[in-house]
Amino acid sequence: MIGALIFIGDELICGAIENTNSVFAGRILTSYGFEIGEIVTLPDKIEIISEYLKNLIEKYEFLIICGGLGPTDDDLTNLAVAKAFNLELKENKDFLSAIYSAKEYRKSQEIAKKMALIPEGAIPLSKNFSSAGYLLKIKNKSLFFLPGVPYQFENLLQTEVIPKLLELFPERTKRIIKTLRFFDLNETDLNQVISSLPEDILSPIKIGYYPIFPELKLILQGKEEKDLEVFINKLKETFLPYLVSEKDKSLPQVIGELLKTREEKLATAESCTGGMLASIITSVSGSSLYFDRGFVTYSPESKIELLGVKKETIEKFDVVSYEVAMEMAEGVRKKTKVDYALSITGFAGPTGGTPENPVGTVYIGFSYKNKIKAFRFSLSGDRNQIQLLASYTSLDILRRYLLYGESFFSYRFATGIKERTF
Amino acid sequence: MIGALIFIGDELICGAIENTNSVFAGRILTSYGFEIGEIVTLPDKIEIISEYLKNLIEKYEFLIICGGLGPTDDDLTNLAVAKAFNLELKENKDFLSAIYSAKEYRKSQEIAKKMALIPEGAIPLSKNFSSAGYLLKIKNKSLFFLPGVPYQFENLLQTEVIPKLLELFPERTKRIIKTLRFFDLNETDLNQVISSLPEDILSPIKIGYYPIFPELKLILQGKEEKDLEVFINKLKETFLPYLVSEKDKSLPQVIGELLKTREEKLATAESCTGGMLASIITSVSGSSLYFDRGFVTYSPESKIELLGVKKETIEKFDVVSYEVAMEMAEGVRKKTKVDYALSITGFAGPTGGTPENPVGTVYIGFSYKNKIKAFRFSLSGDRNQIQLLASYTSLDILRRYLLYGESFFSYRFATGIKERTF
Repeated sequence: MIGALIFIGDELICGAIENTNSVFAGRILTSYGFEIGEIVTLPDKIEIISEYLKNLIEKYEFLIICGGLGPTDDDLTNLAVAKAFNLELKENKDFLSAIYSAKEYRKSQEIAKKMALIPEGAIPLSKNFSSAGYLLKIKNKSLFFLPGVPYQFENLLQTEVIPKLLELFPERTKRIIKTLRFFDLNETDLNQVISSLPEDILSPIKIGYYPIFPELKLILQGKEEKDLEVFINKLKETFLPYLVSEKDKSLPQVIGELLKTREEKLATAESCTGGMLASIITSVSGSSLYFDRGFVTYSPESKIELLGVKKETIEKFDVVSYEVAMEMAEGVRKKTKVDYALSITGFAGPTGGTPENPVGTVYIGFSYKNKIKAFRFSLSGDRNQIQLLASYTSLDILRRYLLYGESFFSYRFATGIKERTF
Repeated sequence: MIGALIFIGDELICGAIENTNSVFAGRILTSYGFEIGEIVTLPDKIEIISEYLKNLIEKYEFLIICGGLGPTDDDLTNLAVAKAFNLELKENKDFLSAIYSAKEYRKSQEIAKKMALIPEGAIPLSKNFSSAGYLLKIKNKSLFFLPGVPYQFENLLQTEVIPKLLELFPERTKRIIKTLRFFDLNETDLNQVISSLPEDILSPIKIGYYPIFPELKLILQGKEEKDLEVFINKLKETFLPYLVSEKDKSLPQVIGELLKTREEKLATAESCTGGMLASIITSVSGSSLYFDRGFVTYSPESKIELLGVKKETIEKFDVVSYEVAMEMAEGVRKKTKVDYALSITGFAGPTGGTPENPVGTVYIGFSYKNKIKAFRFSLSGDRNQIQLLASYTSLDILRRYLLYGESFFSYRFATGIKERTF
């Protein structure tokens, strides 16, 4: 049940694109209990592709090979397969007719038909696409060849490859995997507490720490449900406020579920995050049930005109301040019938900042009931990281309030808090 | 001058995180003229790490090994190195004192000091970090060991590894690399035109096609500046409207430069993209010079209250329509002194849609001078892809207008257009 993955493409080697297929394949195979022994990324060169096909087939039960099946001159996978295993390439009639009827190849059929030349013995994985991929059995090992286009790769992996693998390896180790997500928690602090847990709680669990900015994932694998439950309950004793989800749900998803259950609504006002907070909230399908509107008040004028922030407040305290964050949140509540408002004003960098409020300084306003709180944060990272961390932190402030009331408002990078009522 | 990269970590194998270090390393090494022969990703297992260290050192001049240098129990790189090359691990005093003074390990020093045990002969790459990485020379090959935390990896690669590589290999092939970005262009259409170019124009250039949704990157490598210029001019004859940048700049960066030069301003009104358009615009530092405000009018009420969209228009044509898109854009122009307004209303999915306007239908409004245009699009993909494609398309409509006036308003997925004046 141990396989390996081969990703082919100069674009991966020279870092022109991210390998999202590797992430997807790793996740889905692992969650089904399959083990991946190694992942290899190769350039568009027949020699090395051929060499790895021959080597890895000796070490592993199955291989998944991604990329190089397309029509352009740098697509060489089929030639490499032919070389590695001494096979002829034959024109597959089903592939050919799919290519001829595809809209996207209407003007380039002579080039596109190269994709129909596949190794003898290859079993197409699907007839739906013009680049369907195929299965090849060599020395009783299963080699799955898939196109590199992510949408096609993910689809074929899910609908064709996984079911075939499940048939081939019915006795795979059944493991239960639980993915916990934390926010505002340091990996080493978590590790320290975990490694001091009693042996009987610790030993049945395989633990992986995966920082995935700005969250921290903890992937736990065990054979028995109850071992995992005991372990997780132990973690909650120390880390409850930082635990966003036990089901690998993201912060915006958790916010959505909480607000939907309470039938409450949220609106936002952002400056330095420029729409990112609203975008994160609305990345969740169905968010229209609890998200009404967002203001991206990027200029001082727009804060005054749209939210009623007072010109005098900006002049006295500067646009990046507790007071402006509070007036922004208050403005949202006054102009909109929502239960909660979140506001963000700060310096995302790399330019900007003042001696008192350098780049990374962010004020987050939170209004609930008749109250308004503003938190000051000192965040690090590049522009995108600061925007992301500020957006997530504001959502997490709301999350902690919804779950724990006003008990858990302290954060690692918070440097102050002010509040007032309406 | 050919090296290989090894990335170590179960979190990469099982897809828990994306390998951004691989992208960074690939890009920076390639741009300096170094060739990467292969990239291997391994689990946290001493045996296979050790095996690959021994194998790859025979095939390549240098190796860059990333990950497994941390303090947690799954960090095994140093042990694997010791095993592979029969070396002892020794406590490095500089590392140790850096760990003892680091804020983040204040509460976990006993665990953290494991990071100071490095192979004999290892030369630390920096004294600035508590996880600095090191250089090891084996059989006259250079092995660079770097931490997996992206900020540290990128920093060390840039400031320590690249300079050392440049010293080691002064005769590397100097290549000029130009990265072109296209939008709304199909890879096979581009390839078809390219492969029909005259031999003398084509042969000096190495070409890579890299779809990076929603753009398409074309990476051109050549020895002479003039060969690249001739080639690019040939491409422009056919593909000018689709060419976003010859300097690998993204669409929001290009929009920023165009608006700044013209001293003009933009504001936005979004529904189904929920803040993503504003977020993309403001991802560019300095965007406050040309971006004033964005409205995220996620509910019908907010469209009416904030933008002056007429209730009757929504009732007659539905909120996802040409007419509402135009009234949203018009509302932005009327309430704000900006030169351009972009609006988006549609069904991003997966839920929603009507028989006439299924999921993926997006109306984009564009207002300039005294005109308002609305375009209807039929987009495919998941929710995030539809939001991203809609956001990018709206920016591209503005880009083409700024560069070419009203000549190039046709798009692959556009299914209609309406217009009126104020």
